[in-house]
Amino acid sequence: MSAKAIMEFISQIKGLNAGAMQRARERLGTLAKPPGSLGRLEDIAARLAGISGSVFYDTGKRCVIVMSADNGVYEEGVAATPQPVTLAQTINITKGITGVSAIAKQFNTDVIVVDVGVNADIDNPNVKDRKIRKSTWNIAKSDAMTYAEAVQAVLIGIKTAVEAAEDGYRLIGVGEMGIGNTTTSAAVLSVLTGLPAGDVAGKGAGLSEEAYRHKIEVIKRAVKNNKPDPADPIGVLAKVGGFDIAAMTGVFIGCAFMRVPAVIDGFISMVAALAAARLAPLAKEYMFASHASYEPGFRHAANVLELKPYLNLEMRLGEGSGCPIMFAVIDAACAMMRNMGTFEEAEINDDYVDDLRNIDRFTI
Amino acid sequence: MSAKAIMEFISQIKGLNAGAMQRARERLGTLAKPPGSLGRLEDIAARLAGISGSVFYDTGKRCVIVMSADNGVYEEGVAATPQPVTLAQTINITKGITGVSAIAKQFNTDVIVVDVGVNADIDNPNVKDRKIRKSTWNIAKSDAMTYAEAVQAVLIGIKTAVEAAEDGYRLIGVGEMGIGNTTTSAAVLSVLTGLPAGDVAGKGAGLSEEAYRHKIEVIKRAVKNNKPDPADPIGVLAKVGGFDIAAMTGVFIGCAFMRVPAVIDGFISMVAALAAARLAPLAKEYMFASHASYEPGFRHAANVLELKPYLNLEMRLGEGSGCPIMFAVIDAACAMMRNMGTFEEAEINDDYVDDLRNIDRFTI
Repeated sequence: MSAKAIMEFISQIKGLNAGAMQRARERLGTLAKPPGSLGRLEDIAARLAGISGSVFYDTGKRCVIVMSADNGVYEEGVAATPQPVTLAQTINITKGITGVSAIAKQFNTDVIVVDVGVNADIDNPNVKDRKIRKSTWNIAKSDAMTYAEAVQAVLIGIKTAVEAAEDGYRLIGVGEMGIGNTTTSAAVLSVLTGLPAGDVAGKGAGLSEEAYRHKIEVIKRAVKNNKPDPADPIGVLAKVGGFDIAAMTGVFIGCAFMRVPAVIDGFISMVAALAAARLAPLAKEYMFASHASYEPGFRHAANVLELKPYLNLEMRLGEGSGCPIMFAVIDAACAMMRNMGTFEEAEINDDYVDDLRNIDRFTI
Repeated sequence: MSAKAIMEFISQIKGLNAGAMQRARERLGTLAKPPGSLGRLEDIAARLAGISGSVFYDTGKRCVIVMSADNGVYEEGVAATPQPVTLAQTINITKGITGVSAIAKQFNTDVIVVDVGVNADIDNPNVKDRKIRKSTWNIAKSDAMTYAEAVQAVLIGIKTAVEAAEDGYRLIGVGEMGIGNTTTSAAVLSVLTGLPAGDVAGKGAGLSEEAYRHKIEVIKRAVKNNKPDPADPIGVLAKVGGFDIAAMTGVFIGCAFMRVPAVIDGFISMVAALAAARLAPLAKEYMFASHASYEPGFRHAANVLELKPYLNLEMRLGEGSGCPIMFAVIDAACAMMRNMGTFEEAEINDDYVDDLRNIDRFTI
């Protein structure tokens, strides 16, 4: 499979609607508040107008798409959690008992879980079966996958986002479940940014100091041996990435293609967003960072993307667990736009103010 | 009126329930996630247990209490907004069209607006009439109010919080409406912390550079002439504060007295929280910062209180507009505690993992 199919989607991604953004800014200027005093809520509202073409964004249905896959690099001992937990949690998401499920339920958010490469047979009607194969290969010993598989993974992500948009989802979060994927994400980030492995790798779900040093060595070795070309993001995903990250990259592209806001979760989600932006620079306009992950590479990826998180929760769970909370922030921006009165409606105008100025002061 | 009535409430404030917090931490440790990976959501859940005595906090009804009052220092030209806007927005809150109303509606949050000193007669059944008098005096020329009035304002705040708790509100946000109150708040903060006026004063709703310099001069003059004693927070509120800040101080005390979480909004709310914590150190345990206000003094007050905001929205509207969004973050913490499965429920245990480890890898 060549990258041509991906490029056809990307070529149809358009930038934000400048006219709608201008109209949104004009309305924001008429709302009864000091100019700009609702800060980033105003920026969100303006960007939603640019995305949708309408000053009032109807957030409606929302979901988190969780890409589940295993990563061959697990066998290097780079993860504190056993590999079978990928399978267990993929199933548990459908039972509503994982972190993302628990939080999503509170925020009326559906969770769409997709098996793109879990290392086991899954027979569960609530897990979308788009398995490429069971686990990638170990990036410390070979490429993670073939180039064709990377293309396939990205296309699965695009397809999943397109289907979600067609199903009426108006806010899409991008999450993952894949033991070992902080290692692959750090490798992808290291290649895409040129930052050393030690800067972008963290202790994941709780590595010892020794295992952490080994993780950095594994990333260095993978990058050195597999020789990914930073100018070819799909090749980078194939050589040092994973099915999970590659499919998430596709979700970001698919969201931009369908003009739906895409909410970034933590470190892995942010790295996928960066890969998507490298493939499709306009896709960035559709992305919203949610929370500042505690995983150290997150900040680097966010800085390169020039995206600033809205929430400071020191979370590092993944799964897309931060996305539903960010949906609430977006809801606040939409509520501001929809519910607030203008200066006229608030009867704050010069006449009124002059009238009121004449009220006697200090008449105790 | 002496401060004795206030001290009687304060003497009955208890610290967090250590046993319940321990039980909450134990449950957090059994939830199917890497330890601590839900970061500050876990801290919130533990603190809610300490507040309520129960591992599962039922957030239920929530409200924002808005203390409305005018500030005599307005006549010094320290505000970019005309004084009658205090009255207009106090009424507009009841109409649901101000920033806090618009956002509160989205988050099923009631707004309780209390007139403690608006500079006009208000005859509106939806505004609680607890007016002390019409506007404080100008702190650049005299104390803002008498000591007895400051006590009265704090007691009004306590009473309002107690009533809200008795009405079943389980989360209480603390907001304000009072043109000129960034000046009085900065003066209070300067006295309570010893920080110079230039460090704690900002441009409010949009002052010119010249008006900003004048604002700093006014704060310096008020502090110098009125000689507030930092060791007497009620005296500080009387000499350089306002009815709004003093009543908000009381709300924080009342929340702690009733064991209800109190959510801080922006700069003025944070200064009131600091004044409350100086009067009643245990009240701090019941406080949650919401967003990092763009008003520069906010950071200083938050640092002194050692409270770290959860949201980074660059808001500076006030009114309590950030509180409903923070309620959603608290909801996320409660949902985690309530909905997530334990390792046992998630069937992540050694046997299961061992079984799964035997699954053949790379069976493509």
